[in-house]
Amino acid sequence: MAKNSTNSPAPEAGADNAASESTPKVGKGTPTPSRAAQEAARKRPLVPDDRKEAAKQARAKQTEARERARVGMAMGDDKYLPARDRGPQKKFVRDYVDARFSIGEILIPVMFLVIVLTLIPSYEVQTIGIFALWGFFLGAKPRATALARRIQTLGDERLADMDASGIAMQLVFLTAPGVQVFDASTAVALARDVNDELIQHVRDHPDRYAALATIAPQDPAAAVKEMQRAVGMGFKGVVINSHTQGEYLDEAKYWPIFEAAQALDVPVYIHPNTPPNDMIKPFMARGLDGAVFGFAVETGLHALRLVVSGVFDKFPRLQIGLGHLGEGLPFWLFRIDFMHGASVRSGRYASQPKLARKASEYLRENFFYTTSGMAWTPPIRYVQDVMGMDRLLYAMDYPYQFVPEEVNVTDELRISYEDLKAFYQTNAERVFKL
Amino acid sequence: MAKNSTNSPAPEAGADNAASESTPKVGKGTPTPSRAAQEAARKRPLVPDDRKEAAKQARAKQTEARERARVGMAMGDDKYLPARDRGPQKKFVRDYVDARFSIGEILIPVMFLVIVLTLIPSYEVQTIGIFALWGFFLGAKPRATALARRIQTLGDERLADMDASGIAMQLVFLTAPGVQVFDASTAVALARDVNDELIQHVRDHPDRYAALATIAPQDPAAAVKEMQRAVGMGFKGVVINSHTQGEYLDEAKYWPIFEAAQALDVPVYIHPNTPPNDMIKPFMARGLDGAVFGFAVETGLHALRLVVSGVFDKFPRLQIGLGHLGEGLPFWLFRIDFMHGASVRSGRYASQPKLARKASEYLRENFFYTTSGMAWTPPIRYVQDVMGMDRLLYAMDYPYQFVPEEVNVTDELRISYEDLKAFYQTNAERVFKL
Repeated sequence: MAKNSTNSPAPEAGADNAASESTPKVGKGTPTPSRAAQEAARKRPLVPDDRKEAAKQARAKQTEARERARVGMAMGDDKYLPARDRGPQKKFVRDYVDARFSIGEILIPVMFLVIVLTLIPSYEVQTIGIFALWGFFLGAKPRATALARRIQTLGDERLADMDASGIAMQLVFLTAPGVQVFDASTAVALARDVNDELIQHVRDHPDRYAALATIAPQDPAAAVKEMQRAVGMGFKGVVINSHTQGEYLDEAKYWPIFEAAQALDVPVYIHPNTPPNDMIKPFMARGLDGAVFGFAVETGLHALRLVVSGVFDKFPRLQIGLGHLGEGLPFWLFRIDFMHGASVRSGRYASQPKLARKASEYLRENFFYTTSGMAWTPPIRYVQDVMGMDRLLYAMDYPYQFVPEEVNVTDELRISYEDLKAFYQTNAERVFKL
Repeated sequence: MAKNSTNSPAPEAGADNAASESTPKVGKGTPTPSRAAQEAARKRPLVPDDRKEAAKQARAKQTEARERARVGMAMGDDKYLPARDRGPQKKFVRDYVDARFSIGEILIPVMFLVIVLTLIPSYEVQTIGIFALWGFFLGAKPRATALARRIQTLGDERLADMDASGIAMQLVFLTAPGVQVFDASTAVALARDVNDELIQHVRDHPDRYAALATIAPQDPAAAVKEMQRAVGMGFKGVVINSHTQGEYLDEAKYWPIFEAAQALDVPVYIHPNTPPNDMIKPFMARGLDGAVFGFAVETGLHALRLVVSGVFDKFPRLQIGLGHLGEGLPFWLFRIDFMHGASVRSGRYASQPKLARKASEYLRENFFYTTSGMAWTPPIRYVQDVMGMDRLLYAMDYPYQFVPEEVNVTDELRISYEDLKAFYQTNAERVFKL
């Protein structure tokens, strides 16, 4: 046995059924603040006294909501629970215990049809990963059907799930592959439709939802126009479902998208996609093309391509969001700096320009991160430590990794009340201008 | 600026010239022990008093050796320094300050010729990454020539570099791509030659070198025979330079290699390779195919393919070594367990059998890790925390990341003397039976 491994990372998660009828153990692990930070933390109370009672009550309500969610799911009747009797909705900006902010993914129902009708003819041409993913989710397995249902609703079930999870507000956006797998004109039209439909849900529940807009990078000029229109309608930024038919946004033809995002002062959230055809095969051989490993690699690569391309020297105020604790990149800062520096100095690649700053500096100052899918204390504390408390936002990877108890892990991070509030709420308010 | 990021990951490393004439700043960061561990650590002295004087003297000698190495290199005369006047060699098992253990990579000179003669005709067929890598290292850039020289010597320059780095013993092995890019009969013959030559160097310097044997997975039966012969000659295990022409050792035809390793009770060290042709293109587009990112992804994928294949249920005592702090996998334990578990339960992939244990348990108990290339406190402490103190070994990524001052970072880890000794010495003694 490993001597010091007191941290159990391994949830016995009931992910088969969109995870909600079982009681997964979420790993907590040991906290890892620096000694100075730890001593400072000891001096100030983690939660001010006057907050403790409110927190206790909110937690009791949450437990009750979870119980109801669990009972509902355990019956296996697949019916949605009624929305919790919430009384008049309070506004978002409040104490963290009932003001947690998260992300949530959606798929507009019509997209299923478009995927089936337009992509089947091109199977194996550019969409191996997408077919592996949606071929599964459109199938009959219990995990698949629960997920396919949840991802298409912004109504009562989602709100009840948020209540059961202790999440006040969700930033919703179109899940992978977005509109990025279609031909340009289909994608441009579909992005408009998706945004029009999505903003309606936000307007119906302005205290529960905010949204990122969908754009079609296939037509950069149209993408810029749609971004401008969407921000005018109230969208808080845009989502890019990573590669677009094997192309990455570090190619200069896509840079007008970043120019517009900087000008509008909105972030670009890069959400994972399955690896493109010219990368996926060694992953697929053992079913590692998706969330187990392939997503992280594909999206980490996208982010790193942006960093070394020099796009942040051109658009220094650009902010990119990454989920899954930065897709692993925070682990690699030292080696990235060392090897990228050596590579640039030696002039090995024409595609690697000399940058104004070190790669890690862009990863610290032009990126923010969410915890989505990584509800485990050690890497969360690691990322807070090396990236800064103001760079990490809580998020549940909903509906893919819907575990109502998940916030218990992060509620118990050994960080100050102020830092916890930043993590759940104020960082999101700043980044998305909520 | 990021609020809490007091840790600088970024070395200004002089990697252009095999890194030794400049004075790179190696990131130290803040230590991250748990509170309980920290309190326990405070109670016992980090270094017992009677060791302090010896450590001080050893450090002074090391500083002197480094100065000499730096002066020698700064003259640019490319001459090797004479071996340090060491007096009679002490045996390896001693105080950590002069008994640090590391790995070191070598390339037998004749292999350059074989690479050029046999691989050029197959360029673009199976070896895009290898040509990108060795096309650079065989070129005229200063970093390339310094590295190509260093990697071919097991003589005075390497010993002087070890002295200057405070490293007592190196475990040497054939660097990527090993013999794995050749046809089977060439590879089998070459492996034998490499091992015969390498063991001679070990015999010349038994107190400075140990070695891992080269095998040719292309012919699993011959690989097993060569492994048996090599262990009989004194090799401490075998190295696999990751994929073999795009194939991974999770394929059952390669399992006799693991069966033999378990029977001989020797570890298999999986060293990175450039990604195979059916994966490399999105990495190459921005020069990320090598040590900046591609190596980690390729080798992490290899390890994870082994885990999910069930090979450790078949060979439960098999031990696999990974460098670069586990190629990032320790960061992902929670999500790997969650998503692999969900995937297996839903029966999504025929290639993912049900395992006896959680993926993270194999990663903890059938793997050990080295720090090579990751001389930065936060991820080192993270891996010690989540994998256990007995699972992590120090290593310099020599000669690719030769920074003589590197051990200063790990000397100053806020861990106990006992743990530091395990990290530098006793874990290696146990794993490799030194």
